[in-house]
Amino acid sequence: MNTDSAVVVLSGGQDSTTCLYWALEHFDPSLVEALTFDYGQRHRIELDCARDVADYAGVAHTVLPINTFAALGGNALTDDDIAVAPMPEEGLPNTFVPGRNLVFLTFAAAFAYQRDISNVVTGVAQTDYSGYPDCREATLIALERALSLGMEFDFQLHTPLMNLSKKETVEMAINLGAMSAMALTHTCYEGQRPPCGRCPACELRARGFAEAGVEDPLTATP
Amino acid sequence: MNTDSAVVVLSGGQDSTTCLYWALEHFDPSLVEALTFDYGQRHRIELDCARDVADYAGVAHTVLPINTFAALGGNALTDDDIAVAPMPEEGLPNTFVPGRNLVFLTFAAAFAYQRDISNVVTGVAQTDYSGYPDCREATLIALERALSLGMEFDFQLHTPLMNLSKKETVEMAINLGAMSAMALTHTCYEGQRPPCGRCPACELRARGFAEAGVEDPLTATP
Repeated sequence: MNTDSAVVVLSGGQDSTTCLYWALEHFDPSLVEALTFDYGQRHRIELDCARDVADYAGVAHTVLPINTFAALGGNALTDDDIAVAPMPEEGLPNTFVPGRNLVFLTFAAAFAYQRDISNVVTGVAQTDYSGYPDCREATLIALERALSLGMEFDFQLHTPLMNLSKKETVEMAINLGAMSAMALTHTCYEGQRPPCGRCPACELRARGFAEAGVEDPLTATP
Repeated sequence: MNTDSAVVVLSGGQDSTTCLYWALEHFDPSLVEALTFDYGQRHRIELDCARDVADYAGVAHTVLPINTFAALGGNALTDDDIAVAPMPEEGLPNTFVPGRNLVFLTFAAAFAYQRDISNVVTGVAQTDYSGYPDCREATLIALERALSLGMEFDFQLHTPLMNLSKKETVEMAINLGAMSAMALTHTCYEGQRPPCGRCPACELRARGFAEAGVEDPLTATP
């Protein structure tokens, strides 16, 4: 097992891009790989962004297909027929894809296992976010144990953003020199580029940059 | 949450068929569903067997595709180029697909979540088997916790065969009235029907029936 290497789950968004730069600082940069899932997301631009970010950062990049979520259906991230609804007062938003991060991290661990890599890095966070239970620390701790037992391999799931606010995530990106890569990322739930600025994901991102007092390279006027 | 309902992961093999009949006895039979994964297994006959077993048992049956394992590659169950090797003295057999049962159960839980079903039944066992770590009780306990936390839903993973020998599994099938369904099942790693009789899966199955002192309906001479 090579403990200097890592697999980073890279969605092409702000958080996973920050995590990629975190991994480049914490592990041997030549042994860091990025892994993106093509799970039938409505916005194919995410895959382009992930590829661009990985290229820009100079890391190997693999896209793995997952056709199962689209077959399961019933959520706004893979179903064309379902519009993103405003965040509900109670319960989960309709962008919740049940099990999504659990599946991503299980396949990421399987991918890492095949390469003898024990470190898996993901940009999930339990603060400031959309209330997804598969992003919480307790879930990730339980999953790390299930993955390690299930593959007989001592996985370390790294969640550098777990307890950071969006403001702190932006500050981390600045400190890691990841800001120029931010111009290549994608966050908008509506799949627009430039981003719509109105969906929950756009609002959250804008607030983070505003609170950190820096301009978002993605929306900066040239 | 309806606690009288259940989703059974049905591979079309002896064990999952036994579990389906176990579920029909332990839950409301009209609320038991079978779920099969089409993950690129080399032997498509498994999918036919699962459908035949579900039809015979009179339960709703869904096949969910998973194209990710084939993309990951590197194992004898999805790669045409890799032959099933004899069981090694040490380490895992080359039929080990890393994370397979973890992924199956996570998607089964997501499928159950969408139907408000908390009971998920699987035929994994830690006795007499091929040494897969994702079939062990400790793994399943950790996974049940990760799934419940990750979807905020109180899943119960039922593993009726966990600590049974193959002989005891056959005896359970007899007691549940599942023997006639056994003629529809498939076990052989070589994908042969009638089964090859020589692969590790065939040998295990034959030993179970022999020790239980009954004829296997699948290999019975008419």
